[in-house]
Amino acid sequence: MQGRTKAELAGISLLGNQAIDYKFGYDPAVLESFANKHPGNDYFVKFNCPEFTSLCPMTGQPDFATIYISYVPDKLLVESKSLKLYLFSFRNHGDFHEDCVNKIMKDLVELLDPKYIEVWGKFTPRGGISIDPYCNYGKEGTKWQAAAEKRLMYHDMYPEIINNR
Amino acid sequence: MQGRTKAELAGISLLGNQAIDYKFGYDPAVLESFANKHPGNDYFVKFNCPEFTSLCPMTGQPDFATIYISYVPDKLLVESKSLKLYLFSFRNHGDFHEDCVNKIMKDLVELLDPKYIEVWGKFTPRGGISIDPYCNYGKEGTKWQAAAEKRLMYHDMYPEIINNR
Amino acid sequence: MQGRTKAELAGISLLGNQAIDYKFGYDPAVLESFANKHPGNDYFVKFNCPEFTSLCPMTGQPDFATIYISYVPDKLLVESKSLKLYLFSFRNHGDFHEDCVNKIMKDLVELLDPKYIEVWGKFTPRGGISIDPYCNYGKEGTKWQAAAEKRLMYHDMYPEIINNR
Amino acid sequence: MQGRTKAELAGISLLGNQAIDYKFGYDPAVLESFANKHPGNDYFVKFNCPEFTSLCPMTGQPDFATIYISYVPDKLLVESKSLKLYLFSFRNHGDFHEDCVNKIMKDLVELLDPKYIEVWGKFTPRGGISIDPYCNYGKEGTKWQAAAEKRLMYHDMYPEIINNR
Amino acid sequence: MQGRTKAELAGISLLGNQAIDYKFGYDPAVLESFANKHPGNDYFVKFNCPEFTSLCPMTGQPDFATIYISYVPDKLLVESKSLKLYLFSFRNHGDFHEDCVNKIMKDLVELLDPKYIEVWGKFTPRGGISIDPYCNYGKEGTKWQAAAEKRLMYHDMYPEIINNR
Amino acid sequence: MQGRTKAELAGISLLGNQAIDYKFGYDPAVLESFANKHPGNDYFVKFNCPEFTSLCPMTGQPDFATIYISYVPDKLLVESKSLKLYLFSFRNHGDFHEDCVNKIMKDLVELLDPKYIEVWGKFTPRGGISIDPYCNYGKEGTKWQAAAEKRLMYHDMYPEIINNR
Amino acid sequence: MQGRTKAELAGISLLGNQAIDYKFGYDPAVLESFANKHPGNDYFVKFNCPEFTSLCPMTGQPDFATIYISYVPDKLLVESKSLKLYLFSFRNHGDFHEDCVNKIMKDLVELLDPKYIEVWGKFTPRGGISIDPYCNYGKEGTKWQAAAEKRLMYHDMYPEIINNR
Amino acid sequence: MQGRTKAELAGISLLGNQAIDYKFGYDPAVLESFANKHPGNDYFVKFNCPEFTSLCPMTGQPDFATIYISYVPDKLLVESKSLKLYLFSFRNHGDFHEDCVNKIMKDLVELLDPKYIEVWGKFTPRGGISIDPYCNYGKEGTKWQAAAEKRLMYHDMYPEIINNR
Amino acid sequence: MQGRTKAELAGISLLGNQAIDYKFGYDPAVLESFANKHPGNDYFVKFNCPEFTSLCPMTGQPDFATIYISYVPDKLLVESKSLKLYLFSFRNHGDFHEDCVNKIMKDLVELLDPKYIEVWGKFTPRGGISIDPYCNYGKEGTKWQAAAEKRLMYHDMYPEIINNR
Amino acid sequence: MQGRTKAELAGISLLGNQAIDYKFGYDPAVLESFANKHPGNDYFVKFNCPEFTSLCPMTGQPDFATIYISYVPDKLLVESKSLKLYLFSFRNHGDFHEDCVNKIMKDLVELLDPKYIEVWGKFTPRGGISIDPYCNYGKEGTKWQAAAEKRLMYHDMYPEIINNR
Ligand SMILES: [Ca+2]
Ligand SMILES: [Ca+2]
Ligand SMILES: [Ca+2]
Ligand SMILES: [Ca+2]
Ligand SMILES: [Ca+2]
Ligand SMILES: [Ca+2]
Ligand SMILES: [Ca+2]
Ligand SMILES: [Ca+2]
Ligand SMILES: [Ca+2]
Ligand SMILES: [Ca+2]
Ligand SMILES: [Ca+2]
Ligand SMILES: [Ca+2]
Ligand SMILES: [Ca+2]
Ligand SMILES: [Ca+2]
Ligand SMILES: [Ca+2]
Ligand SMILES: [Ca+2]
Repeated sequence: MQGRTKAELAGISLLGNQAIDYKFGYDPAVLESFANKHPGNDYFVKFNCPEFTSLCPMTGQPDFATIYISYVPDKLLVESKSLKLYLFSFRNHGDFHEDCVNKIMKDLVELLDPKYIEVWGKFTPRGGISIDPYCNYGKEGTKWQAAAEKRLMYHDMYPEIINNR
Repeated sequence: MQGRTKAELAGISLLGNQAIDYKFGYDPAVLESFANKHPGNDYFVKFNCPEFTSLCPMTGQPDFATIYISYVPDKLLVESKSLKLYLFSFRNHGDFHEDCVNKIMKDLVELLDPKYIEVWGKFTPRGGISIDPYCNYGKEGTKWQAAAEKRLMYHDMYPEIINNR
Repeated sequence: MQGRTKAELAGISLLGNQAIDYKFGYDPAVLESFANKHPGNDYFVKFNCPEFTSLCPMTGQPDFATIYISYVPDKLLVESKSLKLYLFSFRNHGDFHEDCVNKIMKDLVELLDPKYIEVWGKFTPRGGISIDPYCNYGKEGTKWQAAAEKRLMYHDMYPEIINNR
Repeated sequence: MQGRTKAELAGISLLGNQAIDYKFGYDPAVLESFANKHPGNDYFVKFNCPEFTSLCPMTGQPDFATIYISYVPDKLLVESKSLKLYLFSFRNHGDFHEDCVNKIMKDLVELLDPKYIEVWGKFTPRGGISIDPYCNYGKEGTKWQAAAEKRLMYHDMYPEIINNR
Repeated sequence: MQGRTKAELAGISLLGNQAIDYKFGYDPAVLESFANKHPGNDYFVKFNCPEFTSLCPMTGQPDFATIYISYVPDKLLVESKSLKLYLFSFRNHGDFHEDCVNKIMKDLVELLDPKYIEVWGKFTPRGGISIDPYCNYGKEGTKWQAAAEKRLMYHDMYPEIINNR
Repeated sequence: MQGRTKAELAGISLLGNQAIDYKFGYDPAVLESFANKHPGNDYFVKFNCPEFTSLCPMTGQPDFATIYISYVPDKLLVESKSLKLYLFSFRNHGDFHEDCVNKIMKDLVELLDPKYIEVWGKFTPRGGISIDPYCNYGKEGTKWQAAAEKRLMYHDMYPEIINNR
Repeated sequence: MQGRTKAELAGISLLGNQAIDYKFGYDPAVLESFANKHPGNDYFVKFNCPEFTSLCPMTGQPDFATIYISYVPDKLLVESKSLKLYLFSFRNHGDFHEDCVNKIMKDLVELLDPKYIEVWGKFTPRGGISIDPYCNYGKEGTKWQAAAEKRLMYHDMYPEIINNR
Repeated sequence: MQGRTKAELAGISLLGNQAIDYKFGYDPAVLESFANKHPGNDYFVKFNCPEFTSLCPMTGQPDFATIYISYVPDKLLVESKSLKLYLFSFRNHGDFHEDCVNKIMKDLVELLDPKYIEVWGKFTPRGGISIDPYCNYGKEGTKWQAAAEKRLMYHDMYPEIINNR
Repeated sequence: MQGRTKAELAGISLLGNQAIDYKFGYDPAVLESFANKHPGNDYFVKFNCPEFTSLCPMTGQPDFATIYISYVPDKLLVESKSLKLYLFSFRNHGDFHEDCVNKIMKDLVELLDPKYIEVWGKFTPRGGISIDPYCNYGKEGTKWQAAAEKRLMYHDMYPEIINNR
Repeated sequence: MQGRTKAELAGISLLGNQAIDYKFGYDPAVLESFANKHPGNDYFVKFNCPEFTSLCPMTGQPDFATIYISYVPDKLLVESKSLKLYLFSFRNHGDFHEDCVNKIMKDLVELLDPKYIEVWGKFTPRGGISIDPYCNYGKEGTKWQAAAEKRLMYHDMYPEIINNR
C-alpha cells in the first residue's frame, strides 16, 4: 500500500533516521534531494518554516523569522528533513536578514536546479521595525525567467497588517 | 419541487445510500460522475476537503491536510459523496505530499475530462516545517490550456501566515 | 430631503410593504427592478446573502450557503426586497449546489439584461466536504464579454481557509 | 518645525475650528480643498469612513455603511474635516445605496478634478441582505482613464466573508 | 561564523552603538547605508514600522501611523537602526499625512538611489475618518519605471476593513 | 403553524407595520412590551445594537457606538422594533457617552421592571481615545440584586484589544 | 473493532438510514435517545447547530440562528441525527426568538431528564439589531440545580463583538 | 435637544476648544473633571488609549503602548480631552513601563477620588520581549477595596497570544 | 548541557526511535510514562492534538476532532510520542464521540494516577451539527476532587463561535 | 525629564550596553534586578516572550515556544534585558518542556522573592501534538499563597483553538 517503491525511496538518508547530527554552523552540505515523479506537468511546492533563528552579525543577539520557500521543480525535489537541518545550521550563524534570504535561495538553486524558486523571510521586530526580504529566480531559457520578473514586479502589493504584538 | 428529474439523478449510486463500503486502500474506482446541465457557460466548482489523511511512506506516521480542488467542468461533474470515498481511500495509504496532490489531479482528469482543474494540499507540520504542493491542468485545444499556465505563474503570491499553532 | 422623487420610486411594490406573500416554491416571478440613474458610468453592485437555504434533491436534507451576487447594471437595478423573496423561494426547493448558482444567475440576466454578473455560492459541508460553485456572464457586444472571461480565468486563486468549524 | 508654511495652510477654514455648523441636509458646498505639494509624482490618498449613515428613501429607516474613498490628486487635495462634514450631511437625507455612492464620487470630481477616484460603500444588512456599491472614474485624456476601466474590470474578485454578525 | 567580514560591516555606525542622540526635529541626515552584496538579482526589502508618530501642523495634536516601506535596492541598502532614528525625528514635527509619506520616499531615494521604492502610511482616525496615503517611484531608464506605474495603477484594490476599534 | 396565537400577538403595534414615524428627538415613549411566556425559569435576552449614533453635547459632532443590552425578564419582554425606534431617537440628540448608557438602562427598567439588566456602550474614538461605559441593575428583593453587584465587580476583566483601525 | 456492541446500538433508527421523512412542521416526536455508558462521572456534551432557521410569527419572514446546546446527561444521550430532524422541524414554523430557545430546552428536558442543560440562540439581525436568548435548567435535588443558578448569574459577561457584517 | 444643560457643561474648558497648548513634559495638572450625574448606581467607565508613547529612561528610545483605564466614579468623571493631553505629556518623558502605569493610576486617584480604578499598559516589544504592567486600587471603606483584591487575584488568567508581528 | 541525566531518560523507548509499529486497532498498551521531577509544586501539562481521527460505529465513515488533554501530574508524566501512538490507534476504530473522550480520560487515569485530568473533544460537523464532549476527573482524597467539580460546573460558559466553514 | 534618578538606575548593567556576552549554555547568573518603587500597592508585571528556543534532550532537535511570565513583585523587579539573556541561555540547552517551565519559575523565585509568579510555555508541535506546561507559586505567609491555588485550579478553562498551521 505504498505510493513509492523501495527503489524510489533509496536516496533518502535522513527521513526515518532519528540519530542525526545537528550542525551548529552554517552548512549547505546537509541538503538532500530525490527524484520528481511528475516531470510532465509544472507544479509548485511550498515550505512554511516558522522556526527559523539566526544571530545578528553586529551584536550577536538572536533573530527570529518565518521563512516561506516556494519552487517549481525540474528533475529534483528537496527532502524536507534535510531542509530542516539546513535551516537549523543558521542557528548560531551571524548574518543580515537580506543576506540570509538570498543565501537560502542560492543554495537551493545549486542543489535542485529548479525551474523557479522564491524565498520570503518575515523577521520579528528589533527597535520597533521588522524587515521582510524577498528574492526569486527563474531558470534561463525557460518561461519561468519571465515569470520571475512578473512575480517580483507584483510582489506583496497587499502588505500584511503589523502591530508588533 | 425538484430542480432535477429522476432521470437526471439516475446515475448517482452513493448519495442517499448510507450502507457504503469504505475502501481502506487507495482506490480511484469509487469515483462517480453525473451530467453538467450548464454546458453553455464555463464555470468553477470548488471542493474544500479539510479532513484528508494519509501515511508517510517512510515512517508510517499519519499525515493530515486540507485539500482544495477547483475545476471547470466540460460534460461531467464529480459526485461529492464519491469524492469523499475516494479521498478516504488514502487513509491507510503511504505516499509523499507531492505525489498525493498530483495523483488526485490525474485521477479526476481521467474521470471528468474537465476543461480545467487544480489541486492544492496544505499539510500540517512535521519537525516544524509544513509542505503545500499545488498542481493544475488545462485541456489542450481550449483556452484553459493558457489559463492553466497563467494561474500557475501567479500562484500563491500572498502566502498565508503560518505559526504552527 | 429625498434623493429620488416619488415618480422615480413608483415601480417598487415590495419595499415598504410588510404584508408580503412568501413563496414556498421556487419562483423567479417575484423579482422586481427599477431604473439605474447613473447610466453614464459603469459601476458594480454587490449583494451579500448569508441566509440562503435549499434542499438536497436526493435526500431532502437542508443545505445552507452564503450567496454573493455582483453585477454591472445597464438600464435596470434589482430591488433588494424582491431579491430576498426570490432567494427565499428556494427554501423548500430541491436542487444541486451547482444548479442553484447557475439558475440564480440566469434568472437575473433575464430580469436585468445587465452588462456583467457573477454568482458565487459557499455552502456548508456535508460529510466533511463543502462545495463552492461560481459562474459569471458578460453581455455580448460589450467589453464585459471579455471581462467575464478574464474574471473566470483568475477566479479564486487565493481560496479561503476552511476547517469545518 | 512645520512641514507647511502659514501661507500654505491659509485656505483651510475648518480644521482647528471647533465651532462648526453641522448641516442636517445633504450639502456638497461644505467641501474644501488645498494645494497638492507633490505634483511631480502620481500617488494615492485613501479615506476610511466607517461612520456613514443615511436614511432609506422609502421607509425613512436609518442605513449604516463604511465608505472607502481613494483618489489620485491632480492640483488639489480634499481637506479631511470638510469631508467629514460633507458625509455628515447625508445623516437625515434619504437615498438608495447605489445613489449615495455615485453622488459622493461625482461631488468629489466636481471639487477636485482628480486624475482618478473610486468610492466603495459597504452597508449593513436589511432583511438578511447587504449591498455594497462601487464606482470609479478616470480623467479623460490621462492614463487614468484606462486605469479606471482596468480597476473596475478586476474589482472585488475576492469578496470578504459575510455572516451578518 | 559570520556572513559578513569586518570590512563589510565597517560603514555602519549606529547598529551596536547604544549611546545614540535621538533627534527631536526632522533630520534626514541621520540615515545611513551599506553595500548590497546581491547585485546580480533584483529583490525586495520591506520595513514594517508600526511606531510612527508626528504632529498635526494646524492643531499640534499627535498623529499615529504604521508606515510600510518596500524597495528594490541597486548598490545600497538602508541600515535599519538609522531608519528608526530618521522616523523618530518626525516625533515633534508638524506635517500633513500626505506630505509625510511623500517626504519619506524622497529622502530614501536621495540616500539609496534605489531601482524601486514605495511608502504606505496608515494613520489612526481623527473625527471618525482615517487617511492612508501611498506613493511610489521607479528609476528612470530601468524596467522599474514601468513597474512603478503598474503597481500604482493596481494599488489597494482590496482595502482592509476598518471599523475604528 | 404558529408558536403564538393572535391573542398573544395583539399588543404589538410596530412589528409588521412599515409606515412608522421615526422620531428625531429622544423619546422613550416609543418603547413597547409584550408578555413573557416562560415565567417559570429565569433566562437572559441580549440585544446587539451596532448601529447606535448620537451627537456630542458640546460640539454637535456625531458619535457612534455599539450598544449591548442584556436582561432577565420578569413579566414583560421588550419588542425589538420599538427598541430600534427608541435607539433611533438618540440620532439627533446631544449627550455624553456615560449619560446615554445610564439613560437607556433607566428607561428599560421603567418599561419592563426586569429582574436584571445591563447596558454596555462601546464608542468609536475621538482624538485617539474611545470610551466604553457599562452600567447594570438588579431588582431589590430578588437574588438578582446581589448578582448585579457580582457582575459589576467582575466586569470586563479581559478588555478587548483596541488599535483604532 | 467497535466501541459499542450491536445491542448497544439497537435503539437508534435514524443514524445510518438515509431514507428519512423530514417534517416541515414543528415536531418534538422525532427526537431519539440512547444509553449513557459513563454514568459514573458527570460530563458535558455540546451541540453546535449553525444551520437553524425558523419564521417570524408576525411577518412570516425567515429567521436564522446558530443554536448552542450543552447538557450533562443522566441516563440518556440524545441521538444527533434525530436532533437535526427536530431542529429542521422549525423550518416553516413561526415563533419568537425567545420562545424557540425556551421550547428547545423544554423538549430536551422532557426527552432526556438530564442533570443540566442550557440552550443559547444567536440570531442574525433584523433592522440592525440581533437578539441572543439564553436559558438553562438544573435538575431539582442534584447539585446541578445550584450550578444552573451560578451559570445564569455569570452568563455572557464578555459579549462577542458584533458589527452586522 | 441636549442631555446636559449649559450649567452642567460649565466646568469643561478643553472639549470644544481647539487652540490647546500641548505640554511636552509630564504634567498631571492638565487633567479636568466634571460631575457624575448617576451617583445612585455604581458603574464602569473604560478608556481605550492605543496612542500612548514615552521614552526609555536609560537609552532615550521611544516606547509605545496601549493603555486601558477602567474606573468606577464616585462624584467625578474625568474629561476625555484632558485625559488625552495628560497622556500626551508622557511623549518626551523618560520612565520605565512599570512606573508609567502606576503613576497614571495615582494621578487619576488624586484627581477623581474614584471608588475603583485599574490601569493596564500593553507595550510593544524591545529585544523580542514585551512588558504589560497592570495595577489597581479600591477605595478604603467601600466594597471596592475587596473588589480590587479579587480583580488583582484573578487578573489576566487568559493572556492574549503574542507573536511580535 | 542536558537538563535530564541519562538515568532520568532511561525509561523512554519511543522518543528518538523512528522504527515504530503504528497500531491500527485501539491499543492503550502503547502508552508510556516517566518520572515527574517537580513533585513539590502542582502544575498543569496540556496536550493539543488537532490530528485525531476515528470511525463512526454505525456507518463506518471517518470522524475528525481536535482533542485537548490537560492534567496535573502526581508521580508520572505521559511521554508525548506514546500519546501520539495511542491516539493513532483510534484511526480505524469505531466509537461514538462521547465514548472516545471518556475512554481517553480513563486510560490516562489508569496509566498516570494523576491528581487531575480533563479531556475535551471538538469534532467536525456531520449533517450540519458538531459535537464537543468534555469530561474530567479529580483524585479522591485530594483538593483536586473538589476542583474537578468546580471546573465542570463552570465549563465552556463562552462557547466558541461555529459556522461550519 | 526623567521618572527615575541616576541613583535609581545605578544597579542596571545590561540595558543601554550593547557589547553583551550572549551565554550559549543555561546560566541563571545573568539575571539582574532593580528596586520596586511602588511597594504600597500589589500589581502585576507580565513578560511576553515569543522567541524562546531550546533543544530536545533525547534527539537534539530544536524546540520553539512562547513563554508568558507574570509576577507580583515584592521588593524587586527583574530587568528585562537580563531576562532576555537568561532565556537566550536555553538556546543550546537540552530539556523537556515540563522541566524548562518549572526551572524558569524557580530561578525567578530565587532572584526576586516575589509575592506571586506564574510561567506558561506554549510550544510548537512535534508529531502533530503540542505541549503547554503551566506552573505557579505564591509566597508562604501572604495572601498570594491561596491566590496561587485558586489560579491553578481555574487555569486555562478556555483552551485556545489549535490547528497546527
Ligand atoms: Ca499584529
Ligand atoms: Ca497560525
Ligand atoms: Ca497556527
Ligand atoms: Ca481554523
Ligand atoms: Ca473555519
Ligand atoms: Ca468557523
Ligand atoms: Ca462576520
Ligand atoms: Ca477594526
Ligand atoms: Ca479596529
Ligand atoms: Ca482593532
Ligand atoms: Ca462582525
Ligand atoms: Ca460581522
Ligand atoms: Ca500577533
Ligand atoms: Ca502581532
Ligand atoms: Ca468560519
Ligand atoms: Ca492555528
